[in-house]
Amino acid sequence: MAFALAVHAGAGTLQPEKQIQPFIHAGLRAALLAGFAVLADGGTALDAVTAAVVTMEDNPLFNAGRGSVLTMEGSAEMDAAIMEGAGRRAGAVGGITGPRNPILAARMVMQRSEHVLLVGEGAIRFLREQGMAMETPDYFVTERRQAVLLAELSRRADELNKPSHDAAKAQDSKHGTVGAVACDKAGTLAAATSTGGMTAKLPGRLSDSPLIGAGTFADNATCAVSATGHGEPFIRWVVAHDVSARMRYLRETLDQAAGNVVAELAQVGGSGGLIAVDTSGRITLPFNSQGMYRGTIGVDGAPMTAIWREKLT
Amino acid sequence: MAFALAVHAGAGTLQPEKQIQPFIHAGLRAALLAGFAVLADGGTALDAVTAAVVTMEDNPLFNAGRGSVLTMEGSAEMDAAIMEGAGRRAGAVGGITGPRNPILAARMVMQRSEHVLLVGEGAIRFLREQGMAMETPDYFVTERRQAVLLAELSRRADELNKPSHDAAKAQDSKHGTVGAVACDKAGTLAAATSTGGMTAKLPGRLSDSPLIGAGTFADNATCAVSATGHGEPFIRWVVAHDVSARMRYLRETLDQAAGNVVAELAQVGGSGGLIAVDTSGRITLPFNSQGMYRGTIGVDGAPMTAIWREKLT
Repeated sequence: MAFALAVHAGAGTLQPEKQIQPFIHAGLRAALLAGFAVLADGGTALDAVTAAVVTMEDNPLFNAGRGSVLTMEGSAEMDAAIMEGAGRRAGAVGGITGPRNPILAARMVMQRSEHVLLVGEGAIRFLREQGMAMETPDYFVTERRQAVLLAELSRRADELNKPSHDAAKAQDSKHGTVGAVACDKAGTLAAATSTGGMTAKLPGRLSDSPLIGAGTFADNATCAVSATGHGEPFIRWVVAHDVSARMRYLRETLDQAAGNVVAELAQVGGSGGLIAVDTSGRITLPFNSQGMYRGTIGVDGAPMTAIWREKLT
Repeated sequence: MAFALAVHAGAGTLQPEKQIQPFIHAGLRAALLAGFAVLADGGTALDAVTAAVVTMEDNPLFNAGRGSVLTMEGSAEMDAAIMEGAGRRAGAVGGITGPRNPILAARMVMQRSEHVLLVGEGAIRFLREQGMAMETPDYFVTERRQAVLLAELSRRADELNKPSHDAAKAQDSKHGTVGAVACDKAGTLAAATSTGGMTAKLPGRLSDSPLIGAGTFADNATCAVSATGHGEPFIRWVVAHDVSARMRYLRETLDQAAGNVVAELAQVGGSGGLIAVDTSGRITLPFNSQGMYRGTIGVDGAPMTAIWREKLT
């Protein structure tokens, strides 16, 4: 049976420096190939999205795991969620610093607790008791993100004197998310999402990523979805579940459902996009922003990636 | 135009002691009358659900605010969310100890931050900066909840030796939630939910209550919903948003949509119920558990309440 995997690494007004662009494509391809290795070997969608997201968390270019954007206090606070389409099993963590791979922490909550979402210090203590290794806080902090934080704080200080209108500029360095969705050979779906949130966010702010139904959702009856964009409208429009609801109740195709949800988001100021897959292995990658770091891979094992409106290559 | 308000204070296998039952009815009626006073005076649904939930948070009988159930460490950690149907404005807090009324904290996040959900210490710091008064942790802790925690911890210790099957017994003293939904004279909807979570929960565990789409949702195009029950299936089934999606996409009535969602929950082990209202002021109060503390009030100003399957009186 066909299998398929898609990944994203953030959406918005993307202005990566020219010399960084090849590394973005390479990072997306590495994630796609990590997931492909699992699926081609007959592995589960759950293992494939885990493998894909782990590679992006480890990549300091992307806003998740190492290289997460920093809170207004200079620390990285990460959110992640994972969900399996069979039985809608789910686990998530929010506002944590410690596990090298927050997506593995989310999976541990799913598999070893009776809860879905654990946050902050309580989450860390549970993970420690389960034997998860912890990094020191400085593992996650990169010089690049420190420079972006300083620029953002300085911009905000300037705005107190003269409001500027370049807030949308270079969003790719200020927020972003990584995610993966997969359909395995057995036709089971899974979704995974991980993020460091927004630069200079308030400590304790949860994004849509760890919220089941908002940034992450999977149900074998419909689809698996991972979203990326400006988190708050994605929470209020319950984006990932809305794609599933349109397929289930309106009998829309995956393409129609995802496209309609992303178009409605645009009308309410929800800039961003999502990746989704159905049980036939069809993939859709709609976004209403200037660009979305994204890629797909299928049975042929050829990773295809794109940044802006250009076709995947 | 018609206006309407409904409240709940938890669902499950309800076995309140006989002498406590009148106080439960009185607590529900006080909440209904507080919301009615706002609505009858031409106030907003948002103010009405706030007023109703505040009275239940202040009532030590209910699992929210003072009288919240305790974590395995003996502290109260509270979650709350509020949402308005016009523009889907929303705010929520999770895992906090401090504000006397967590629902006012959720409302402050909605009105004074650019975020939807703040958790833990970060949330407390934001609320403090906004001038919210904080109670000492012992304000929330009642002798009754301490006794229930000790019984639960002792039961768990016993189970290590001989597994028992009375886990479902007296659920009303181990978890529960309070909530309110309203339709005001202008036809605008609002929902509010507040809880202390589950007795002996892991610190850091968030319930469905503060999650927009799971325990709380409002959209003037469909309905306002507040859910109560065993939180984790309510998160994975995105319950409150699913009621709205059935109305929007299948054109089901409020009754049909809410009834179908609660029935599906029963099939997947999601014990509990919900209260919902539409823009015509119609109310529905379905539950799949033995009982649900609940009540309604309309233009006639007569509060009606019930605990089990009996009619509201």
